[in-house]
Amino acid sequence: MISRTLTADLPRHVGAPVRVAGWVHRRRRLKSVTFLVLRDRSGTAQVVLRSDAAPPPEETVVEVHATVTANPRAPGGVELTSATLVPLSEPASPPPFDLYRPAVSASLPTILDHAPVALRHPLLKARFAVSAAAVAGFRSTLDGLGFTETHTPKIVSSATESGANVFGIDYFGRQAYLAQSPQFYKQALVGVFERVYEVGPVFRAEPHDTARHLAQYTSLDAELGFIEDHHDVMAVLREVLAGMAESVASLGVAVPEVPAEIPELYFADAQAMLGKDEPDLAPADERWLSDWAVREHGSEFLFVTGYPMAKRPFYTHPDPARPAYSNSFDLLFRGLELVTGGQRLHRHADYLAALGDDVEAYDDYLAVFAHGMPPHGGFALGLERWTARLLGVANVREVTLFPRDLHRLTP
Amino acid sequence: MISRTLTADLPRHVGAPVRVAGWVHRRRRLKSVTFLVLRDRSGTAQVVLRSDAAPPPEETVVEVHATVTANPRAPGGVELTSATLVPLSEPASPPPFDLYRPAVSASLPTILDHAPVALRHPLLKARFAVSAAAVAGFRSTLDGLGFTETHTPKIVSSATESGANVFGIDYFGRQAYLAQSPQFYKQALVGVFERVYEVGPVFRAEPHDTARHLAQYTSLDAELGFIEDHHDVMAVLREVLAGMAESVASLGVAVPEVPAEIPELYFADAQAMLGKDEPDLAPADERWLSDWAVREHGSEFLFVTGYPMAKRPFYTHPDPARPAYSNSFDLLFRGLELVTGGQRLHRHADYLAALGDDVEAYDDYLAVFAHGMPPHGGFALGLERWTARLLGVANVREVTLFPRDLHRLTP
Repeated sequence: MISRTLTADLPRHVGAPVRVAGWVHRRRRLKSVTFLVLRDRSGTAQVVLRSDAAPPPEETVVEVHATVTANPRAPGGVELTSATLVPLSEPASPPPFDLYRPAVSASLPTILDHAPVALRHPLLKARFAVSAAAVAGFRSTLDGLGFTETHTPKIVSSATESGANVFGIDYFGRQAYLAQSPQFYKQALVGVFERVYEVGPVFRAEPHDTARHLAQYTSLDAELGFIEDHHDVMAVLREVLAGMAESVASLGVAVPEVPAEIPELYFADAQAMLGKDEPDLAPADERWLSDWAVREHGSEFLFVTGYPMAKRPFYTHPDPARPAYSNSFDLLFRGLELVTGGQRLHRHADYLAALGDDVEAYDDYLAVFAHGMPPHGGFALGLERWTARLLGVANVREVTLFPRDLHRLTP
Repeated sequence: MISRTLTADLPRHVGAPVRVAGWVHRRRRLKSVTFLVLRDRSGTAQVVLRSDAAPPPEETVVEVHATVTANPRAPGGVELTSATLVPLSEPASPPPFDLYRPAVSASLPTILDHAPVALRHPLLKARFAVSAAAVAGFRSTLDGLGFTETHTPKIVSSATESGANVFGIDYFGRQAYLAQSPQFYKQALVGVFERVYEVGPVFRAEPHDTARHLAQYTSLDAELGFIEDHHDVMAVLREVLAGMAESVASLGVAVPEVPAEIPELYFADAQAMLGKDEPDLAPADERWLSDWAVREHGSEFLFVTGYPMAKRPFYTHPDPARPAYSNSFDLLFRGLELVTGGQRLHRHADYLAALGDDVEAYDDYLAVFAHGMPPHGGFALGLERWTARLLGVANVREVTLFPRDLHRLTP
């Protein structure tokens, strides 16, 4: 049997017999001829059937033996003629909406309820190629900067990192929790590898039903040692964003320019511009500041730095010049907080002071800092937020294969 | 300030002033001179200190300003002279064992209890570079074969895949479970992308305390559509193993040769050779068969195919010629089952028949097959088993940063 040809490669086989395989994407029966559009992982091809037999329904899996014929009017400039069809697998029921229509007609709940079939729609499927390319760009950038990829526990013994919104697990009869982030582990591993990253699931028992929160999402985490302060972390993040954008651009998807120097706005100055005096930024503030960065700096990315210590986690390093403010940052991208990061405390004594009476709950974490840790910092980037903002989709669920949230545990 | 030089790059800076930074790996105080060995992520360097001051203890984080001087007797051919030391962070307690000794003197429990500092030992740390390189080889091989990387839910609604050894979660007041594998999702995604892979954590509430089981491990999963039978899956796996080995070899680590054609032994023939008539292979059988493959075929890899249907999961595709046996395989590597895989059922009606009265428990899974699925199959490779066997370490815990098992939930 001749080997399978992907539809995207058909123009290189004009005049030759081929075997293609895929799904019946669409059928159109005319008086003397039937046109099938066959879909495979590379694209689609038009198949001309002369037979009088009724063509199989959409989403039937078929193998087609045919000849590649040039036809300037056919999509891609070729079509398949003298075709014989071998059905490999028939659908038991039709899709919940027509996958062959150029636009997606279904609502988000319908798409999510029927994800295994809905995601076959070319527009929906394409989003996940973007997501995969972005992750590849994240990794290749960090690999090039001497980072080591790691895999850390998702089951942890205590809910101490943030204290709230954790999922409990029965762990061989003991109470355990799903990790909300690899924060403690990536810091510990700076002591081993200096520079580490992890791409993996994180879990938040997020009680709010919003367009930007999920109970499980993919976190792109990095942490590095021997930094001067958070600006060294921001410089690595800038390289990572450029690498991710470049990787996505290779798919032919429009990406924003990542400036050589992403503009930085001090938190207190942001408050002054907003005419506010709050300890944190509200979503509306983030949108306003993003617009400002585009207007003033022509940048779709904006660093906000120097958040008040009171609003950052206990491991945050203060700004030595103004200890009520921190060496931390958020990165805003198109109106949304995409990345959070900063310099961490690294001295054992500083952790003892920061934790105060809570010291006992942090035994394992403190042990890390008992053995000499360099100044370090890092960041966490939410993959779904990145892809959603990049593609201009409103809800992170639209760029998650099988989202988990307050209401959704299937499929 | 001049930028930091890694110790591995010092030979390119002979005669020049440099700034290096890292940990005090070892100190040796002689009468008129003190030698420090400085460790960073790239290796170690010898520092010559003329000062009378006591050198800082091992694991102190220091910055060293010095001159690079050629010295054929020093490790790497250079040493750092005219050195001044700036301590960045002092240890609060010594490591649980001497990290500077060439061999690791600590027991496995000591190493695991103190992983954040124990893993700094160059021999222990090096294992994880091997692990990271292997994963990079897995991904790059599959990227080259048109696979799409995916991220699937680790929180699932039912414990139906294998029924036993699952961890329960309180999911917003509902009972949920940690995913034991991405099996159902990767199959569903064959309908979308044809070829998918995932690198991620899987969870087994494994009640046995053995050297080869963990409660969380990193599974390298792949699944592909439009196959003839399981041999197409085995061919992809062969490429993946070769890619992983090549990636590890680039670190200078000795790797086994992956034969162009990995020998295949039919399960029934294996039983005959073993003089047995069992439905599965015992660990001792796997070791014997591995030895046999080395003797007979000069291969450290062996495919055992055609396991009895009775011992494989319900979604396994039977061998059409002998329906009591399956189109499945295990890959043995150095005496251990490293990979399990095979062809899956793809027709809706076949799933209905295979599930019988259990159909209702598999609603979501069945929906996947209602919409036209191609013949497909895949495999799952345990990263820790691979690294352990490759490096010849006895226990998978030795190649896991922070293992989780029946007894261990920290650090």
